[in-house]
Amino acid sequence: MITLPDCQALDARDPLRQLRLKFAQPTEDTIYLDGNSVGAMPADAPQRVQDLMTRGWRDARRRGWSHFDWMEKPWLLGEAVAHLLGAGPHDVIFCDNTSVNLFKLLAYACKLQPQRPVIVTQRHNFPTDVYVAQGLAHLLDGRVSVRFIDHPDELPAALGPDVGVVYLSHVDYRSSYRWPMRQANEAIHRCGALAFWDLSHVAGAIAVSLEDDGADFAVGCGYKYLCGGPGAPAWLYVHPQHQEKEWPAIAGWMGHQDVFAFAPDYEPLSGVRRHLTGSPSILANQAMSAAADIWKTVQPADLNWKHQSLSELLVHLLQQRCADLGVVVTSPMDYSQRGGHLTFSHPGAGSVTEALLAHGVVSSFRKPDSIRFGLSPMALSHVDLWNAVDRLVHVLQSGVWQDSRFAKVSV
Amino acid sequence: MITLPDCQALDARDPLRQLRLKFAQPTEDTIYLDGNSVGAMPADAPQRVQDLMTRGWRDARRRGWSHFDWMEKPWLLGEAVAHLLGAGPHDVIFCDNTSVNLFKLLAYACKLQPQRPVIVTQRHNFPTDVYVAQGLAHLLDGRVSVRFIDHPDELPAALGPDVGVVYLSHVDYRSSYRWPMRQANEAIHRCGALAFWDLSHVAGAIAVSLEDDGADFAVGCGYKYLCGGPGAPAWLYVHPQHQEKEWPAIAGWMGHQDVFAFAPDYEPLSGVRRHLTGSPSILANQAMSAAADIWKTVQPADLNWKHQSLSELLVHLLQQRCADLGVVVTSPMDYSQRGGHLTFSHPGAGSVTEALLAHGVVSSFRKPDSIRFGLSPMALSHVDLWNAVDRLVHVLQSGVWQDSRFAKVSV
Repeated sequence: MITLPDCQALDARDPLRQLRLKFAQPTEDTIYLDGNSVGAMPADAPQRVQDLMTRGWRDARRRGWSHFDWMEKPWLLGEAVAHLLGAGPHDVIFCDNTSVNLFKLLAYACKLQPQRPVIVTQRHNFPTDVYVAQGLAHLLDGRVSVRFIDHPDELPAALGPDVGVVYLSHVDYRSSYRWPMRQANEAIHRCGALAFWDLSHVAGAIAVSLEDDGADFAVGCGYKYLCGGPGAPAWLYVHPQHQEKEWPAIAGWMGHQDVFAFAPDYEPLSGVRRHLTGSPSILANQAMSAAADIWKTVQPADLNWKHQSLSELLVHLLQQRCADLGVVVTSPMDYSQRGGHLTFSHPGAGSVTEALLAHGVVSSFRKPDSIRFGLSPMALSHVDLWNAVDRLVHVLQSGVWQDSRFAKVSV
Repeated sequence: MITLPDCQALDARDPLRQLRLKFAQPTEDTIYLDGNSVGAMPADAPQRVQDLMTRGWRDARRRGWSHFDWMEKPWLLGEAVAHLLGAGPHDVIFCDNTSVNLFKLLAYACKLQPQRPVIVTQRHNFPTDVYVAQGLAHLLDGRVSVRFIDHPDELPAALGPDVGVVYLSHVDYRSSYRWPMRQANEAIHRCGALAFWDLSHVAGAIAVSLEDDGADFAVGCGYKYLCGGPGAPAWLYVHPQHQEKEWPAIAGWMGHQDVFAFAPDYEPLSGVRRHLTGSPSILANQAMSAAADIWKTVQPADLNWKHQSLSELLVHLLQQRCADLGVVVTSPMDYSQRGGHLTFSHPGAGSVTEALLAHGVVSSFRKPDSIRFGLSPMALSHVDLWNAVDRLVHVLQSGVWQDSRFAKVSV
């Protein structure tokens, strides 16, 4: 039986416990388990943004381009998190949003092996990933096509000499299933295809090893576990061996080899930065910089210890205290197969999520009966999870979730 | 001879004179003539952004999607400025940056007439416009190609049965030459091609009539005269007759007909909103909303009176006071052919621009010898122009611009 003192003891051992102090404390007694949706706000983010508004926008105006690091932010932010992605410091940039980055790198990847026109992905990949692939196939008049697998086990059978790119979410946004990346990449490369991963539901929760594990391309969003703020810039990664092979899909001036030369013809910037498009979102990058400076101090092994500890604790607490109340953990039981969040089911899960909100626990609901607890190692403690489960027990035991005021479920 | 009292009299007649009070006053005695680069900051923008940081990010987190108008902002911002573009209120959205929007709509426009594979543009169009077109031609393996004209007069000769899209900047970023849009559109349509305009150097300075003048597509940036802040979201316009014809080039979940249904296949949202891609930049949209609320109150005729008045005044002041000092106005002398800024030449223009900066006038330099004064009708007065020219006279007459400290020219 796990007790509150056990949770306190885990917190005492937590190598990241001091990081909580770097995040803003909410005004109310709320436990935020939505790091898989919008991550926590670094305490100094408002001041950084305010500074940009006054010294940058109001006073410097166009001089901001030379007075500040507006131009460099896309790769400075990339350098700050690269070690958590297992990427070289110059192989990651922040820009655009995840959908745009998915499009840019998928088009680029398809261009590398035109004789292999099939993109393999999961039927239940995150919607925008699927849509972007369908949209690219449409744009290219069917010169590439999308082949779906229903289940990870079906990947080997889907691989053939016509497959150019395998395009997957490393972690499933519903179940939290985490693909074994190295093993998948090996199978993908054996077939001659390239491996392209969406890491939105893992980056900032669990450190990964993109280069060592053989990933060719990756993207992820900045506003979930990476704590960049609502609508933060997304990031993208290209393995060094592919960086110089092709033009980017969107050839913008920020990806030109000499931005302010105003040269008549496009020439790609060397390296991953060619995938920059137009003016960066300077305000959003400034907000993102607050988290980036924290990430620089985080060791991958510490992040992984903390995440596993939180995730395993939550499984045990749910089993110990909520199994009799109808809660079933639906994420994989093997930790190595789980990503950032933990998913469990309960009848009327939408109403349970709303009732949890009213009791100070922010989680999220996915149809038909799933509740997701996002586990951010930066901002959460083990005691937070104890308290969240305590409130869940109350909500379920009391039956308050069946109250009509919780019938309407928000997104 | 124009005198300072003449300028004061013009200010007294200015229908937009009260708008200055809605913008933050800089801390120093600076005249900002860089509205063509980074526009002025609305006075309440910092508070709006701060509110998003605390109530939105820190406290609401993922609930922000339902508590606030994060989802709706892309089209609410579009509605706020549509009247100044001559567009229907539901035909404009804010999203991504200008380069990405250029790519999306150019690919869309090319898709509409595949039997007409040529994109006509100007050799000296803004670099990112040229690069995006070259990049699209590359991505599509030459199924579309780019035909350049050197001068506006060459447009008729470049139009033929193979031309699908004519893709132009309404206002030249160097000379400020403004194309006669209606006349150009008529010629373009007579040939059977579609007209696609980049309005970055005019939107927010001069009201235009996209729909009445027959434009098929348009984009522009948000951070210049529209005063959305550094790296603000860009906007895009699609004429209603083209909105339902094709899939967008980047098929993201925000452009799906039912975003939160998580449907397995892409189905475009009806109308212009299908060109939304992934998560909007919520922070940047919030900053943009401050200007949008001001734009709602601005009548197109007032904007145009003010801009013409500023632009004509500046021409006269430069001729009257600086012609003997080597200044030559290089923008067209006919106002109907001028866009947001006014360009003039002087030997050593880069150093003159730096010296002006040191004397509290923010303008911009373009190689080899051009200085641009951006004329924002929202934030500038006629007396501002008098004072700016006064400082220019001092800089040139004194020869201070030849001081070695002004030799290094910033971007």
